[in-house]
Amino acid sequence: MSDGPRAPHVRPAIASAPSSLRPAPVFVLVEPQLGENIGATARAMFNFGCADLRLVAPRDGWPNPAATATASGADYVVDRAVAYPSLSAALADCAYVVATTARPREMLLPVLSPQETAEILRHRIDRGERCAILFGGERAGLSNEDVAAANAIVSIPVNPAFASLNLAQAALVLAYEWAKADGRERFASALDAVAAAPRADLDGLLDQIVAALDHAGYFHPEHRRPVMERNLRVALTRAGFTENEVRTLRGVFKTLSRGGA
Amino acid sequence: MSDGPRAPHVRPAIASAPSSLRPAPVFVLVEPQLGENIGATARAMFNFGCADLRLVAPRDGWPNPAATATASGADYVVDRAVAYPSLSAALADCAYVVATTARPREMLLPVLSPQETAEILRHRIDRGERCAILFGGERAGLSNEDVAAANAIVSIPVNPAFASLNLAQAALVLAYEWAKADGRERFASALDAVAAAPRADLDGLLDQIVAALDHAGYFHPEHRRPVMERNLRVALTRAGFTENEVRTLRGVFKTLSRGGA
Repeated sequence: MSDGPRAPHVRPAIASAPSSLRPAPVFVLVEPQLGENIGATARAMFNFGCADLRLVAPRDGWPNPAATATASGADYVVDRAVAYPSLSAALADCAYVVATTARPREMLLPVLSPQETAEILRHRIDRGERCAILFGGERAGLSNEDVAAANAIVSIPVNPAFASLNLAQAALVLAYEWAKADGRERFASALDAVAAAPRADLDGLLDQIVAALDHAGYFHPEHRRPVMERNLRVALTRAGFTENEVRTLRGVFKTLSRGGA
Repeated sequence: MSDGPRAPHVRPAIASAPSSLRPAPVFVLVEPQLGENIGATARAMFNFGCADLRLVAPRDGWPNPAATATASGADYVVDRAVAYPSLSAALADCAYVVATTARPREMLLPVLSPQETAEILRHRIDRGERCAILFGGERAGLSNEDVAAANAIVSIPVNPAFASLNLAQAALVLAYEWAKADGRERFASALDAVAAAPRADLDGLLDQIVAALDHAGYFHPEHRRPVMERNLRVALTRAGFTENEVRTLRGVFKTLSRGGA
């Protein structure tokens, strides 16, 4: 739990970061080194609606101008980030904590995927628990004592032959899964708002094509016609043309069959 | 489809990047600018087992020493990356293509989430189709013509108030979802390999605790005893102690109740 002193140059703070966003997990960076990485982490978080950042004994003190410079637009997160002298102080108001580790430790804790983590966090945050995700410093990651403060481990399933996620990338994956679990699954498509053409329009297009093909002597031998027509219908129906697209295609086929006649 | 010339300093190439890894989607960067970003993208990909990188008209030519420098360990990906003069040349052998866009365009294409994309890609790759994910350059992203070459759009559900994913971060999210869909869901926990203690051990622990508490006059008033005992049992059972942990706890309680006697 590492309650002892970590670094002398941390202003003690108690309040949690206010946030006008929906409740989201707190991201806790334990002994981060470069301000640039703190800023990059803030950006990664804010991309997915996470704005509560806590720092445990940041090496270069806090606030850190390098963090603000890198945050480029995520100042909201950096400005509200709070530094704590110890991990237990940073977690004092948290009910559920997960620790990110590059590989599962030999520790008797559940190991969750990022997606499982996000689902658990959403459920717990929905019932009012403050939840935190711990990230270790750039050099050594979380100590075993840090991990022992957590309820579970979350490991990102990287390529075993090449595992080199940095701090902000790990935060990005966790924040992304959080946003998904929080309902920001995907954007709407312009397709969602455009109705498919009524079947009569499609039939008109198919009739026109078949007539033009007939004229060009396409259906040969004649006994294959039903299958050929059906294949054509299936292919053109699957596209789910809109009225406009059907109109366009009618023009296209009209032009082509005129040219071919 | 932009078949026209893009940049003069691209060596034409045909072969696809060989890979000793499992089949995975091809990542296609359209008119990337900084070699550093190409290298960072290669790293993001390789973290999740994706090794096929194609470049369309990279601004600074190819190969690019800055990409190798940034790839730090993902040289495997950078060394095998191939530059193409046009998008249609890069996609010539691909059967299914998704285009990443920061926001869905006003285009009649399905808009997928990264997870949906990964599931579709896995299905198609399993049946032998080569699939590609398109990423736009740092400055302007994909053109509408580039997007029109795709079967679908994939947009990462970022915070609408703050959307600033860079190229390598977008690639990271897609590669991460790919790895998940490809079965690299999560690591095992050390817990998986350790059996929970048999119930008799747990009962022994509980009996010991109850006896010690009895001795200390804890169960008061007496009629509350059944409920208090049950609550204790529930809490201690839920932890799923191992045999070792039960042994440790028995020692702890033994020590404590001795001191209190």
